[in-house]
Amino acid sequence: MRIAVIGAGALGLYYGAMLQRGGHDVRFLLRRDFEVIAGSGLHVTSPRGDFHLENVQCFRNPAEMGAVDLAVVGLKTFANDALISLVAPLAASGAAILTLQNGLGNEELLAAAFGADRVLGGVAFLCSNRGAPGTVHHLAQGPIRLGEFGGGLTPRAMEIAAAFTSSGVPCEAMADLVKARWEKLVWNIPFNGLCTLTGQATNALLAHPPSRRLIEALMTEVVAGAEAQKLSAPIAGPAFIARMISLTEEMGDYRPSMMIDRLEGRPLELSSIYGIPLERAAERGVEMVRVRMLHALLDRGEPG
Amino acid sequence: MRIAVIGAGALGLYYGAMLQRGGHDVRFLLRRDFEVIAGSGLHVTSPRGDFHLENVQCFRNPAEMGAVDLAVVGLKTFANDALISLVAPLAASGAAILTLQNGLGNEELLAAAFGADRVLGGVAFLCSNRGAPGTVHHLAQGPIRLGEFGGGLTPRAMEIAAAFTSSGVPCEAMADLVKARWEKLVWNIPFNGLCTLTGQATNALLAHPPSRRLIEALMTEVVAGAEAQKLSAPIAGPAFIARMISLTEEMGDYRPSMMIDRLEGRPLELSSIYGIPLERAAERGVEMVRVRMLHALLDRGEPG
Repeated sequence: MRIAVIGAGALGLYYGAMLQRGGHDVRFLLRRDFEVIAGSGLHVTSPRGDFHLENVQCFRNPAEMGAVDLAVVGLKTFANDALISLVAPLAASGAAILTLQNGLGNEELLAAAFGADRVLGGVAFLCSNRGAPGTVHHLAQGPIRLGEFGGGLTPRAMEIAAAFTSSGVPCEAMADLVKARWEKLVWNIPFNGLCTLTGQATNALLAHPPSRRLIEALMTEVVAGAEAQKLSAPIAGPAFIARMISLTEEMGDYRPSMMIDRLEGRPLELSSIYGIPLERAAERGVEMVRVRMLHALLDRGEPG
Repeated sequence: MRIAVIGAGALGLYYGAMLQRGGHDVRFLLRRDFEVIAGSGLHVTSPRGDFHLENVQCFRNPAEMGAVDLAVVGLKTFANDALISLVAPLAASGAAILTLQNGLGNEELLAAAFGADRVLGGVAFLCSNRGAPGTVHHLAQGPIRLGEFGGGLTPRAMEIAAAFTSSGVPCEAMADLVKARWEKLVWNIPFNGLCTLTGQATNALLAHPPSRRLIEALMTEVVAGAEAQKLSAPIAGPAFIARMISLTEEMGDYRPSMMIDRLEGRPLELSSIYGIPLERAAERGVEMVRVRMLHALLDRGEPG
């Protein structure tokens, strides 16, 4: 498969590297790491074994990437102002577009620009970060669940999932992308926000009983917001929440991406992880009280 | 009136200085400022005019303060482990005890040790802070509302109120101390916590629409918690909240005491301002959801 990676942060670099190692024709749109990767390739460290890709197809401009079958989008959602212009040349060449970005609203942006039938979305369960230029550290996990923006299990979605899976990234195609997006929010909303706000990693929060109760209460609100979205099946809140917490405990001393964004002075992905989910829940009569409070506390706004 | 001041922070020093200037026999229990004040007196700066008290009765040990009519307690509530032993010698001499400490639970501690009929409580509306040793800065306001722990308007409460008022500290005696305490919490709970958590002063929060809405929502929860306490009269929530916010806007760039406690590395008054009010509300069937979340976020606990 000919694949373009747009937004080559830790997620895009890791998945792109795995797909290339798996035999696919992968083309990376790069900024920060262009010189290093074009010159000496891409290095991946991983508990499953480090590897190095000597020859990597690097581009600075999406119009030069050529025709591809699939564009994988890993852009931070706070950069979504640039999303359409970055993807447009690839969409014009006929590519399907898979956004693995965080939160809600990304598929809608792409569908409005390129048509709903061009768009897939996925949620990635990946712990990774960028090292020195040209190096990405894979820390843990990596599975993807993806689906059509328009719903339903299509041959195209299954083919893309198979490309990932055969490249060493377990990937499941599902009929109900909305459910998968909300299930991921059950984790992202409490942990991204609380770790960012308190400066504490996931396991420190879980070890502090009032914070742990708050995490559970936030998760319960997100499940209620999800259930209001006409999902194909219920999320089974208490069991799902218990599993999310137990998986997080196994992750150890983990710092979510939003916490790292703040520590490194970047904007936060507030709209896709908080603002749009709050709107979608409210539109269906669910007010996520604690989620809204967390959003207000994270949004530093303009001091008066 | 013979008055002992226990807990001579900014509040105790200011009120004690005003009472001494008003002609009362005031005795200060001091630690940090003992040498300076015993040597060269107490200096008060104030928009109403600075003044200096040359001769100040200073003590390091409450057992040496002699018999007084009234002990005024200004101790930080995170130091309440020492409260009873500090007050005991004065109570033994027959003094009435007026706690001007923050939040809930202080009168109960004193009443359990010395008898309910010995105890009064008051809420102070005072902006003050300590300067160099021997100096206290009065910034704004100063009125006190006080009442008997046992309820009702007594001659004793009115006499104490008159002593403050005639010394230049407007003071009102009221029958319903519980109501006054909760009304003060309507301000303290949002502003102390949110300023501490965000590092922003009161007017910056009020200028940020999501934070302003959160402040109003927290105040509404506290009013509901208050109304459940069998008050003598309702608080009239919306109008009271609008007045609290407009008074806060007039205060300008104000940093609440808890924010200063955190900036200066002291413990926070979490139990009296959050923990006990949450318990009192829950006992009467009111769960203050956002207040509990704020409490959890402020309580850093022991990182795991």
